[in-house]
Amino acid sequence: MIKAFQEYYTEDFSHCYGCGTKNEKGHQLKTYWDGDETVSRFTPKAEHTALPHFVYGGLIASLIDCHSTGSGSAALYKSQIAQSENYPRCVTASLKVDYLKPTPIDCNLELRGIIKEIKGRKVTILTDLIANNDICAKGEVIVIQVSDDWNGI
Amino acid sequence: MIKAFQEYYTEDFSHCYGCGTKNEKGHQLKTYWDGDETVSRFTPKAEHTALPHFVYGGLIASLIDCHSTGSGSAALYKSQIAQSENYPRCVTASLKVDYLKPTPIDCNLELRGIIKEIKGRKVTILTDLIANNDICAKGEVIVIQVSDDWNGI
Repeated sequence: MIKAFQEYYTEDFSHCYGCGTKNEKGHQLKTYWDGDETVSRFTPKAEHTALPHFVYGGLIASLIDCHSTGSGSAALYKSQIAQSENYPRCVTASLKVDYLKPTPIDCNLELRGIIKEIKGRKVTILTDLIANNDICAKGEVIVIQVSDDWNGI
Repeated sequence: MIKAFQEYYTEDFSHCYGCGTKNEKGHQLKTYWDGDETVSRFTPKAEHTALPHFVYGGLIASLIDCHSTGSGSAALYKSQIAQSENYPRCVTASLKVDYLKPTPIDCNLELRGIIKEIKGRKVTILTDLIANNDICAKGEVIVIQVSDDWNGI
């Protein structure tokens, strides 16, 4: 059984509403390598609506954000000499989402990311959100690796 | 009692998870004029965490998004010859969020927007997210007015 990127975070860093494996109320997004690309899948709930029949933009932004921080962590882990099995944890510096077309709510969503650049602790990820084989939103996200004992300062 | 912008949407357009008054499971964000600025307030729940003690980026993006679509609707309503009491409804074309510092989860959050530009049906809004008098995130959002019978096409 292949573990998702988010399953390699330390327990302290596993509470995120978007992707934390320990957040029972959250989305628990899970991301994997697919060749050089990263992929996550998510099924929206009926309440995640925007205008009728479509997913609200905040969920789309949230999925792109967590998919990208996870992708950044995995890319850094791959590029660094591993000190342990745990992946480094990243936080978001900037998030840009272009909403190309309404995202239908009654289907599975796929997120596909490519690592555009790694520069020190900073990773830039391009993430597409796909529904029914259509790219509905495109994201560009810059994430930064934080220290293992990061406490926000 | 002053009504929020979101209370002027037609019922069909009031189901958004972020700001719909009819979405019982959603955030029900409410936005008002404060002079030429727009303001919303929101109290995050414990589960809206990112890394411990801080709000996850997806909620921040979602609040900035819905605050800005509401602000765009109100600005368009103010600038147009009103056909009815209902505000026009906007959807998001692009959302850019810069995360300046971690947003503490144990306080009330304020969103403050200014209308940067109105061009036909398109409005650009600058929205700051403030916690404990600190600007923690800055958003720039482009929203587009949709027709009253919009169905996603």
